[in-house]
Amino acid sequence: MQFDVISPIDNKVYNSFNYTTKDELNNVLTHLDFVDIPKFAIKELFDNLAKLLDESKKELATIITKEMGKPIQESYVEVQRTINTAMCCRDFIGNIEGQILSADAYMDSSRKAHVEYSPIGTALCIIPFNFPINLCMHKIGPSLVAGNKTIIKPNPQNYFSTKFFYELCIKAGFDTKMLALICPDIPLLQDLIASDDIDLISFTGGTKTADAIAATCGRKKQLYELGGNDPLVIHKDADLDKAFNTLINQRIGTCGQRCTAAKRVFVHKDVFDNIYNRVKDALDGMIAKDPMDENNILGPVVTKEAAKNIYDLCKKYEGLKSVKFTYLNAPKDAYFNPALAVCSSLEDNAFDEEIFGPVIPIFTYSDDEIDKLIAKINSTGYGLQSGIFTNSLDLIKKMHKELKVGSVNINEGPGFRAENFPFGGVGKSGSGKEGVKYTFHNMSTLKTLIV
Amino acid sequence: MQFDVISPIDNKVYNSFNYTTKDELNNVLTHLDFVDIPKFAIKELFDNLAKLLDESKKELATIITKEMGKPIQESYVEVQRTINTAMCCRDFIGNIEGQILSADAYMDSSRKAHVEYSPIGTALCIIPFNFPINLCMHKIGPSLVAGNKTIIKPNPQNYFSTKFFYELCIKAGFDTKMLALICPDIPLLQDLIASDDIDLISFTGGTKTADAIAATCGRKKQLYELGGNDPLVIHKDADLDKAFNTLINQRIGTCGQRCTAAKRVFVHKDVFDNIYNRVKDALDGMIAKDPMDENNILGPVVTKEAAKNIYDLCKKYEGLKSVKFTYLNAPKDAYFNPALAVCSSLEDNAFDEEIFGPVIPIFTYSDDEIDKLIAKINSTGYGLQSGIFTNSLDLIKKMHKELKVGSVNINEGPGFRAENFPFGGVGKSGSGKEGVKYTFHNMSTLKTLIV
Amino acid sequence: MQFDVISPIDNKVYNSFNYTTKDELNNVLTHLDFVDIPKFAIKELFDNLAKLLDESKKELATIITKEMGKPIQESYVEVQRTINTAMCCRDFIGNIEGQILSADAYMDSSRKAHVEYSPIGTALCIIPFNFPINLCMHKIGPSLVAGNKTIIKPNPQNYFSTKFFYELCIKAGFDTKMLALICPDIPLLQDLIASDDIDLISFTGGTKTADAIAATCGRKKQLYELGGNDPLVIHKDADLDKAFNTLINQRIGTCGQRCTAAKRVFVHKDVFDNIYNRVKDALDGMIAKDPMDENNILGPVVTKEAAKNIYDLCKKYEGLKSVKFTYLNAPKDAYFNPALAVCSSLEDNAFDEEIFGPVIPIFTYSDDEIDKLIAKINSTGYGLQSGIFTNSLDLIKKMHKELKVGSVNINEGPGFRAENFPFGGVGKSGSGKEGVKYTFHNMSTLKTLIV
Amino acid sequence: MQFDVISPIDNKVYNSFNYTTKDELNNVLTHLDFVDIPKFAIKELFDNLAKLLDESKKELATIITKEMGKPIQESYVEVQRTINTAMCCRDFIGNIEGQILSADAYMDSSRKAHVEYSPIGTALCIIPFNFPINLCMHKIGPSLVAGNKTIIKPNPQNYFSTKFFYELCIKAGFDTKMLALICPDIPLLQDLIASDDIDLISFTGGTKTADAIAATCGRKKQLYELGGNDPLVIHKDADLDKAFNTLINQRIGTCGQRCTAAKRVFVHKDVFDNIYNRVKDALDGMIAKDPMDENNILGPVVTKEAAKNIYDLCKKYEGLKSVKFTYLNAPKDAYFNPALAVCSSLEDNAFDEEIFGPVIPIFTYSDDEIDKLIAKINSTGYGLQSGIFTNSLDLIKKMHKELKVGSVNINEGPGFRAENFPFGGVGKSGSGKEGVKYTFHNMSTLKTLIV
Repeated sequence: MQFDVISPIDNKVYNSFNYTTKDELNNVLTHLDFVDIPKFAIKELFDNLAKLLDESKKELATIITKEMGKPIQESYVEVQRTINTAMCCRDFIGNIEGQILSADAYMDSSRKAHVEYSPIGTALCIIPFNFPINLCMHKIGPSLVAGNKTIIKPNPQNYFSTKFFYELCIKAGFDTKMLALICPDIPLLQDLIASDDIDLISFTGGTKTADAIAATCGRKKQLYELGGNDPLVIHKDADLDKAFNTLINQRIGTCGQRCTAAKRVFVHKDVFDNIYNRVKDALDGMIAKDPMDENNILGPVVTKEAAKNIYDLCKKYEGLKSVKFTYLNAPKDAYFNPALAVCSSLEDNAFDEEIFGPVIPIFTYSDDEIDKLIAKINSTGYGLQSGIFTNSLDLIKKMHKELKVGSVNINEGPGFRAENFPFGGVGKSGSGKEGVKYTFHNMSTLKTLIV
Repeated sequence: MQFDVISPIDNKVYNSFNYTTKDELNNVLTHLDFVDIPKFAIKELFDNLAKLLDESKKELATIITKEMGKPIQESYVEVQRTINTAMCCRDFIGNIEGQILSADAYMDSSRKAHVEYSPIGTALCIIPFNFPINLCMHKIGPSLVAGNKTIIKPNPQNYFSTKFFYELCIKAGFDTKMLALICPDIPLLQDLIASDDIDLISFTGGTKTADAIAATCGRKKQLYELGGNDPLVIHKDADLDKAFNTLINQRIGTCGQRCTAAKRVFVHKDVFDNIYNRVKDALDGMIAKDPMDENNILGPVVTKEAAKNIYDLCKKYEGLKSVKFTYLNAPKDAYFNPALAVCSSLEDNAFDEEIFGPVIPIFTYSDDEIDKLIAKINSTGYGLQSGIFTNSLDLIKKMHKELKVGSVNINEGPGFRAENFPFGGVGKSGSGKEGVKYTFHNMSTLKTLIV
Repeated sequence: MQFDVISPIDNKVYNSFNYTTKDELNNVLTHLDFVDIPKFAIKELFDNLAKLLDESKKELATIITKEMGKPIQESYVEVQRTINTAMCCRDFIGNIEGQILSADAYMDSSRKAHVEYSPIGTALCIIPFNFPINLCMHKIGPSLVAGNKTIIKPNPQNYFSTKFFYELCIKAGFDTKMLALICPDIPLLQDLIASDDIDLISFTGGTKTADAIAATCGRKKQLYELGGNDPLVIHKDADLDKAFNTLINQRIGTCGQRCTAAKRVFVHKDVFDNIYNRVKDALDGMIAKDPMDENNILGPVVTKEAAKNIYDLCKKYEGLKSVKFTYLNAPKDAYFNPALAVCSSLEDNAFDEEIFGPVIPIFTYSDDEIDKLIAKINSTGYGLQSGIFTNSLDLIKKMHKELKVGSVNINEGPGFRAENFPFGGVGKSGSGKEGVKYTFHNMSTLKTLIV
Repeated sequence: MQFDVISPIDNKVYNSFNYTTKDELNNVLTHLDFVDIPKFAIKELFDNLAKLLDESKKELATIITKEMGKPIQESYVEVQRTINTAMCCRDFIGNIEGQILSADAYMDSSRKAHVEYSPIGTALCIIPFNFPINLCMHKIGPSLVAGNKTIIKPNPQNYFSTKFFYELCIKAGFDTKMLALICPDIPLLQDLIASDDIDLISFTGGTKTADAIAATCGRKKQLYELGGNDPLVIHKDADLDKAFNTLINQRIGTCGQRCTAAKRVFVHKDVFDNIYNRVKDALDGMIAKDPMDENNILGPVVTKEAAKNIYDLCKKYEGLKSVKFTYLNAPKDAYFNPALAVCSSLEDNAFDEEIFGPVIPIFTYSDDEIDKLIAKINSTGYGLQSGIFTNSLDLIKKMHKELKVGSVNINEGPGFRAENFPFGGVGKSGSGKEGVKYTFHNMSTLKTLIV
C-alpha cells in the first residue's frame, strides 16, 4: 500500500513510498543479528556519519523542510544537532565502565560481582515527525553503542528524511545486521509490537499512541517521550530582553510543534505590560509563509488537519471567560498565523491541553500567587520541562522543589536541551530519560560475573 | 471475602483473613502521601527495623514456616537476610549522589545540569510466597529510600508473615502515609493495577502472572523478577566437595522452591560417577518431614497442589527416552521426597520447564560438547542465574560470554546472591535488576535543574 | 621526657605523659601489620565505637575542655560529630566499588582492566589541638577502611583526649596491629617522617609545620589541611538574622580557633549599620570565662602564649590607618575577650594574616566594589572556605567562579562542613580533600587486574 | 649554554639547542595564564592535533629514532599511540561530571554540596627519553583538560622530538598562555621546582631524580612514574606461543628501555626447556643495528654510557653463583646485543636492580615454590606491572592478591597498557596513577558550592 507524503508547503504530494509488507518485515527480522565489533571501530562509524551528515547538510535539510514544513534554517540546525548527538555517542563509548562490588559488606563471603552492560536484544525506535533525524539519532546511537539490533520506524510524513539519514548510517559503515529501517502500516506495526521479535520499544510521540503501545507490547522494556505543556515563567526580576527573545524563539520555533515549546507563558504582573507589548508588536504582521526562504522563521504546521486542530483548540479556550485573544485567525491549508491570548485566571482549565502550534497564552501572577502559579503549572497531567527567568535563589529553590517536571531551567526556556543531559518528563509526558548516557543505560541490561 | 491460609505442614487452616475491600483500598490510597523526612531520620528507621527483626526472629520465623512450610532454620536465615537487606538500604542512603553535567561539550552554552533522584510516585510491590519478608524488604526498602508512597501486596498464602513484618516496619517508625499493606482479591487487584493510583509495579512471581500485569497496567514502570531454570555446571577440574555441597543446598533448600535453585545439573563425564554417587547416597532415605524441627532441612512444598504439579512434571519428563529416574515418588499432601534423574541427551527438551520442587536432573557432557552444553542451558527461554565449578579461565570466559543469563557464578551455585549485587534475569526470567542500589535507581526518576 | 599538659582554664598542669621513646616507637612499628578482615566486621567496629563514644560522652568532653579550653557544650558537639563521622565511614564501606574498563575503545585489544582500591601502607595521622577526636576520626576512619596500618600522632596539648579516644577504638575491636597511638618529641617525629616506615602523612595544622614536613618526607603521599582566613560576606539582600547569628557562632565558637572560622567579615554598606550594631551589642560585656560552665559559649584560647599572639596581631593591624578597633583588650593568661574592628579599606593588607582567636574585623563594600571585594578575599594566600548571605543568583555565580577557595557556602558561614562533603583548601590552606569518601580515595591506591 | 644531542646511531651530534635561560623562563611564567575555553573548543584542539600528528608521522618518527635510537617502526607506533591518547583525552571531556551530595544523611541540615573539578594551577610535566611524545601527551592532555597552565620539560636527549610535538600542539590551536615548552639546565630547573610558580609536578623518570625533586618541591602536588623490574611469569599451563612472543617483544622492544619491560622472566620448570630453547634460538645472531631500517627490531640504547651501564650490571650479576649467562657481549658505543642468563635460585638478589637494556634473566620455579616466586618478585622495592601466562583461576587470584604491583596482567606481559587504564606503580616505581581519567583527577582539585 502506498503512502503519499503531502508537503504542507503547497499541499501537494512531495513523494510516495510503499509500506513495508509482512514479507519484507520478516526478511528484515531474519537478517538482523548481533555483530561483534570493537569499540574503536564503532567510534569510527560515528565519525564517518558525522562527516557524511556535514556533507549532506543542504540536501537533508531540504527534505526535512519539504516533508514537514519547518523553516530551512531550523532544518540546518537539526542536522548540526544530529552531528552533535553522534559525537556525544562516540565520546561516550570510551567512558563506559563496569562495576566491581563486594559481597562481604553484607554477608560472610569474599565473592565479588563484576557487573557490565550487555545488549537487551532488538530495539524498535519509533520516530516523530518534528525532528525526524536528531530524535532518531538519540535513539539509535545509544542503542547501537549498547550492541542492540536496532530498527527504525519513521513517521510516514517524514519517511524520506529518515530514510536519507538511514542510508547515511549504512554508508558510514553501520552494519545492516545491526540497523534496519521499516515503515509498515499500523496493523502490521501493532503485530510487530506484540511479537517476540522485539525486546524494547523506544517511542517519541503522542500520549494516546503510547497508551496503545503499552496495551499490546507485553513485558517489553518501554521508553516513552511524549507531549508537554511546558511553562515559561518571567519573574519581576528577570532579564526581560533575554526572556522575551526566549519566549518568541521557543514558542514560534518549529511553528510551535516542539514537545518542549513554551506552550504557556506566565508573567509577573510588574513586568506584564513590558512583555505583553513586545510580544504583541512581534506578532503583529508575522505570518506563516514559505519555509524554504532562508530568512523566514515561521512556516506551515505539518498538515492542514493539524492547523485546523490548533484553531479548534483556540476557539474552545476562547469560550472561557478568562481568556481573551489579541490575535487569532483561521488557518489557510497548513498555514496558521501566530495567535496571542491573555488569560486572567490561574484557576480555570485555560490551555490545559497541549496545543502543537504557534499559540501564545500569557497568564499573569502577583507575589502572593506563587502557590497558585505552581498549582496551575502542575495541573495538566503533563510534566516535561519548564523555564523560569529570575535572579532569586529562593524562587528557584521553590520551583525546583514543587514543579512536577523533568527539568527546571533557570534563565532559559523550557525548550533547552543538551545532547548529554537527561531529557524526559513525568506523567502524561512519559517515562525513562533520553540523553546519550541515559538512553544507553535504559537500552542495556546488566550482566554479572561473580567470582 | 475470607482467605484461609492452609498450612502445608498439616493441611489445616493456620489462620484466616478477609481480602481488602474496595472501600478499604480507597481509604489506603487516600491516606498515602509524600512525607518529607531527612536522610538521617530514614536511616534510624532502618536501624529500628533491624533491631525489631532481631528481637522477633523466633516469632516471625515460626509464622513463615507454618504458612509456607520451609524448614525453620531457613526461616531464621531469611530473617537474618532481611536484616542485612535493611542495613544495605541504610548504608546506601548516605551514598546517594546527584550529578552535574556541562552542556558546553556539545553546544555553545555554559549551562549545567544538576541531576538528582526524585520519587516516581506510588509503588505497588507484589511479594511471592517463598521469601515473604526478604523479598518484601528488597522492594520496599529502596522504594522508601527513593521517597515513594509504597504499597505491599503479599501472597495470600503468606499474608500473616508479611503482615507481621509490615507491623514491625510501622513500629520502627515508617509512616503509614508512606507504607501500606493491602491484600485484595484478584479482580480488585487487577483494577488497582490498571488504575492511575499506581505509578510503578514491582512484581516477583510467575511469568504468566507477569504477562497479565503487563497487559493491563498501561505505561506504568514495571519491574519483573520471574522464574528460572538455572544450571549448575560441574567441570572436570572442579572442587568436587564444594560442588556437591552446593548442589544439595541449592536444590533441596526451600524444598526446591527458589527461583535461583540449581534446577538443572550438568556434570562433566570425567567426574560424573563421583557426583552422581554422592547425590544418590545423599538422597537415599531423605524424606520431606516436619519443617518445625530445627534439624530438618526438607519440609513440604507450599501446597498439596504444588506437590502434585511437581510430580506431574516429573512424570512427563520420565516419558522421554533420554530421562531415567533413580528416585521418584508420588507426594503425600504437600510432602514430596527428593527425586533424582539422569539425562543422557543435551539435545531434547528434558527439564526445559521450571520445576519448583526438590527434583535433581543430572546431565552429562564431554570436552567436545561445551557448545551443546551452552545451547541446552540457553534453550529454555529462562535466563536468571547460573553456577559453574571450574578452575579454567578459558571456560569461565566462554560461559560468561555465551550464557544468556543475568549472572554467571564461578565456583558457586546459581543461587548465590548478595544484598548489594544486581539481581535479575532476562527473557522469561524478567527484566530490571533488584539489589538495593539497582532497585533504588529503578524506583526513582531523575529531576534536573539547569542553571 | 615528660610533657605537662597545662590547662588553659587555670594555667595549671592538668596531666603529664612521657614522650614515646625510640624503642617504644620501634616496637609499635614492628607490631603493625595488615589484617584481613571482612567488610561486615569492620562495619561492626565502627558501630561499636559509636556506641562507646555515646556512652563516654561526658567523660570525653570533659577531658577535651580541660585540655584545650573550649566550652563544654562544644566538646559535647565534637563527640557527637565524631559519632557521625564514624557512621559515615561505616555507611561508605558497603558502597565502595571497583571499575571495569575496556581497552578496545583506544586499541585493538579485547582486554579489560579490573580496578580496585588497595591500601597504601602505613599512614601517619597528625592531629591538631582544636578538634582532637573528630579530626582524628576523619583521618583514621577512612585509613582503616582503606586497609592501611594507621598511626595516630596527637597534639601533645590534647594527648589525653586523643588517647582516651584511641582506647575506645581498641575497646571497640580495632586491632592494635592496624591502629597505634604515638606521641614522640619533635626530633624523633622528624626521623619517623623521613623514614621508610611511613607511606602516607595526613597532617592538619599550621602551614609552617606542613612546609617542614614536606621538606623531609620524601616521595610519601601527603595530605595537608592547614589554616584559613575565611570570609563571611553579608550582602544587602541577606537574611540579616541568620547572617548575624552565623557571624557570632562561627567567629566566637571554639574561641575563634577553627580553621574555618569567619575570620574576616564583609558587609554591604546598605546593611552595615544593622549588622555592626548587633555585633557591637552582642560583644558588649561578653567575656571569656570558665568553659566548664554549660551555659558559657566563650572560654580561654588554648594557651596563654596563643592569647598573647592574638593580641599582638591585633595591635599590629591597629597600626593601619584603615583599621579602628571598637573593642580590644589585653588577655589575662589564656583568656582573651572578643575584639571588634571596623576596616575602611579593601585595598591594604588589613587582617591578611590568620588570627586564631575571637577577633571580628568588619569590612564594608558597595555594589560597585564587588571586584575589589573578591580581590581582597583572594589576597591572603589562604583559600579554605567562604560564606555568602544573599538571594542573588548572579552574585552567587560570580563568587563561585572567582573566589580561590575550596568551598563557597551560600546563606551559610564558611564554617559549615558535613562529614560526607569534600573539605579542604588551596594555597596556604593545603591540598587534598578530607570528607570520608575523599579521604578514602586519597588514602588508597588502585590495583588493576587486566584479563 | 648549549646542549648537543648526540645520536646513539652514529655517536655524532644530531642537533644542538641552548638551555632555557632564567630570563626566558621568567617570560614564559609571566606569559602563562588561565584561558576560558568551552569544552567543545578544547575537543576540536585535540582533533586538530590528532590530524597534525597523523600528517607528520614520518617526520616526527624520524626525529625520535635519530635522537634516542629506537627502531623507526616503534617510533611510528609511538606517534599512533600519541594520537590514541589525544583521542582518549577528547572523549573524556564530554564525560566529566560533578557530584551533588546531601548533608542530611549525617546532620540536621538540608544543604547540598555541588562538587566540581577545578584546575590546580601550573603543572610542570617532566618527560623521559624513551617515549618523548606519548608520555608527554599523557601528562599535558589531562592537564589541559583540567584547565591547568601547563609546562613541558623534555629530556634534553629528546629535545627536538618533544619540541616538534609541542609545535604541533600550538599549531593545533592550544594557546601559548596555557602550554609552554622549556628546557633549562639542572640548577635553574631546581629553582623552578622549588618556586611558587609551580603547583604540581608530574615526573616520569628515575627514582633518584624523583627523590631529589621531592626534597626541594615543598607542598606541591607530586605525581611520580618511575622505574620497574617487572616480572613475566610463564606457568606450566600457559599458551607457550603467545608467552614466548610476548617475552621477546616486551624485553627486546625499545631495546629493553621501557619501564614496563619484562625485566625478569620466571618459567615453570615443566615448560622451561621449551621457552629457554626458543629464546636462545631467537637471540642467536640477533644484533643491535641501524634503527632507521624499517625491518629492524633492535637498535642502540640511548647513549654509550647507558650501554656500558647495562654491561656493568650484567657483569655484577654474573658474579653470583646462581647466575649463568648464555649470551653476554661488551657493547660497541651505544650498541648492546641481547644478553641471556639462566638463574637457578629464587633466593638471592639476582637481577634485583633494574636493567634498562635487552637483558633476559630466566628464573625457574616448581609447583611448590609459588610462595618463593612471589617473594622474589616482591623483593626489589619496585612494583610497577606484572604479567602471568596461565589458565588457572586459583593462581590468578593468588598472584592478584599477593603481588605488590600496580597491575597484574593475565596472559599478557607486564608491558601492556591502554590509554584509558590506570597506570602506575608502588614503592620505588612511584605513586599516583596516569591514564587519562586518572591523570585528570590527579591534576584537578575539587571546588564545592554548598547551597
